[in-house]
Amino acid sequence: MIDNAGYDPAFLSWLDAPVAALDQISRNAAQARQMQLTKPQGALGDLERLAVRLAGMQGRACPGADRVSIAVFAADHGVAAEGVSAYPQAVTGQMIVNFSRGGAAISVAAKALDAHLRVYNLGTVTALEPLAGVEDQVIAPQTGNLAREAAMTQAQLVQAMNVGRLAVEQAQAREAVIDIFIGGEMGIGNTTPATALAAALMGLPVTDLVGPGTGIDGAGIARKVAVIERALALHKPQPVDPLEMLRCLGGFEIAALCGAYLQCAQQGVPVLVDGFICTVAALLGCRLQPQLGDWLLFSHCSAEPGYARLLDHLPSFPLLDLGMRLGEGSGAAVAIPLLRMACTLHAQMSTFEEAAVSGASL
Amino acid sequence: MIDNAGYDPAFLSWLDAPVAALDQISRNAAQARQMQLTKPQGALGDLERLAVRLAGMQGRACPGADRVSIAVFAADHGVAAEGVSAYPQAVTGQMIVNFSRGGAAISVAAKALDAHLRVYNLGTVTALEPLAGVEDQVIAPQTGNLAREAAMTQAQLVQAMNVGRLAVEQAQAREAVIDIFIGGEMGIGNTTPATALAAALMGLPVTDLVGPGTGIDGAGIARKVAVIERALALHKPQPVDPLEMLRCLGGFEIAALCGAYLQCAQQGVPVLVDGFICTVAALLGCRLQPQLGDWLLFSHCSAEPGYARLLDHLPSFPLLDLGMRLGEGSGAAVAIPLLRMACTLHAQMSTFEEAAVSGASL
Repeated sequence: MIDNAGYDPAFLSWLDAPVAALDQISRNAAQARQMQLTKPQGALGDLERLAVRLAGMQGRACPGADRVSIAVFAADHGVAAEGVSAYPQAVTGQMIVNFSRGGAAISVAAKALDAHLRVYNLGTVTALEPLAGVEDQVIAPQTGNLAREAAMTQAQLVQAMNVGRLAVEQAQAREAVIDIFIGGEMGIGNTTPATALAAALMGLPVTDLVGPGTGIDGAGIARKVAVIERALALHKPQPVDPLEMLRCLGGFEIAALCGAYLQCAQQGVPVLVDGFICTVAALLGCRLQPQLGDWLLFSHCSAEPGYARLLDHLPSFPLLDLGMRLGEGSGAAVAIPLLRMACTLHAQMSTFEEAAVSGASL
Repeated sequence: MIDNAGYDPAFLSWLDAPVAALDQISRNAAQARQMQLTKPQGALGDLERLAVRLAGMQGRACPGADRVSIAVFAADHGVAAEGVSAYPQAVTGQMIVNFSRGGAAISVAAKALDAHLRVYNLGTVTALEPLAGVEDQVIAPQTGNLAREAAMTQAQLVQAMNVGRLAVEQAQAREAVIDIFIGGEMGIGNTTPATALAAALMGLPVTDLVGPGTGIDGAGIARKVAVIERALALHKPQPVDPLEMLRCLGGFEIAALCGAYLQCAQQGVPVLVDGFICTVAALLGCRLQPQLGDWLLFSHCSAEPGYARLLDHLPSFPLLDLGMRLGEGSGAAVAIPLLRMACTLHAQMSTFEEAAVSGASL
């Protein structure tokens, strides 16, 4: 149960709704089918486990990963003023334009996958004109600087989480069934709030988690450590209150991701989680509703150093380790063909009986 | 240079032909392009390195992985008489039928990838009728039992390596350009010769390398160790003579793979290497022609324990680690979408200049 004390219950009460139950009958049917396919048992490794898990989520003995819906949440961060990023804040808005025009990694990947991509603008320091494929959900030009104040007011936190819910609702309104939901993020400076949240969630020193983000140098990393430590000292986040932790240390896009993941789990939509920032949002969601983990697949090990420390806290293991650290949902998009291959092999391979192949003589 | 003493030079002299040179101009152009795309440098990790390496192989600044040609080499092994496999030898022939009918993992994957699949039957203990998509290249019903005699005669080794060359030639005759060649293998008992070769190539104890293959139990593994140690004591393979090592300890499909990889490198065709058995064949090829490594991409870490020890000897690192151990070329097929995504992102993402996105302020 979630303690909503201090929040308008009319706006966040949906977080209390139970996570959907997995379909154990479909899961067991998929497991039984895997044992009959013409291969040694377990020889397809993670691809077998993927097909079986997806069957339990989708309620079909032969699951699919064709209909993919991607929502990228973009927002600026007040903490960028502390010099924690290699890029100017203007890049957040410029990248939203790049998403809209199809030139960003996630745009190219979404097109290649025939996936639906929608971008949610939660607020940038440079105001944007209306853009194709971009939904204007501006909360403020940026969050508060978490090293000096709470990143969000309570009303802003509610608004940001509700945009995550809205994104899933809109995706469901467009398509009768979503096989996989991917959340992505864009926001110059956002490994700083994500690292602060990771330190608070896991009770680990900032120096164990901090990394170069988009590519700051050694002096920049030292500055980032100091900024995050200052923020943690200021807000004294309590693990028992994840929403307050998210409000003080998070960002609009991180809150939206957390809301989207919880909405997916309540609606029974499987989630493929991207890298470091998305995984922090997912872990926050698991603190709010531990059963959220049933609905999460993890796509890749981010090269951001903090990710390695998150591994012990994940409800399941990521599929890929390609040294990616781009964000935007790109690592999850790259993993989609593995899910598709897992489902295709599961559905289309012959059984020992169909192919008249002898079984193991054990 | 290869010492062909003892072999008919008319039949294996092609092994001496030089490996094709990489195109450094295309490689450098691809590297320069990667640095201009709208992402932090290196943020796409291995996908960037893949695109750059493929550019150097294919001689194009924007390489591709659409046209994939898969050759599966199948053969039986005399050493199966020692009880080293969980499955009866009849399964090799049954699986060739399954490949032909589209029910095996590699058949399903090839169809999903729109890749061309051809199976080469090098000899099975149960004779097969003509089958669609299967090329009859039978050398003998099975190899000699390597624990008691050489696996192949010199003539058989020549014949098997030439089938590998033929497979590449036939693939090239079908398609003007092959973006990626995948070799696969099927042969009940073939982790035993592969492990024997790996031990001989790396000078490691058999117990460091041996594994369950398709799924033998502890007693079976102990038997397998004893069989391989007996074979190594009998043949005393010399690292300086890889062809003789292959002849005494190998198998028809392993020799064919080795020949196919060398032919690809001579013809300038990039190779995506599958798991344990294919990687042993590739390492043998690298002993014959060290520059072969320029043309090899490694697809996945096999769950077969010996693979982990091969890692130190590979010219580059595998992409996936999904606990797969099926063979057939299936792990390489599963990795093809990563190559395709690497090429698509490389070709289609906008540059900072095109998208008017600010660069890093370093």
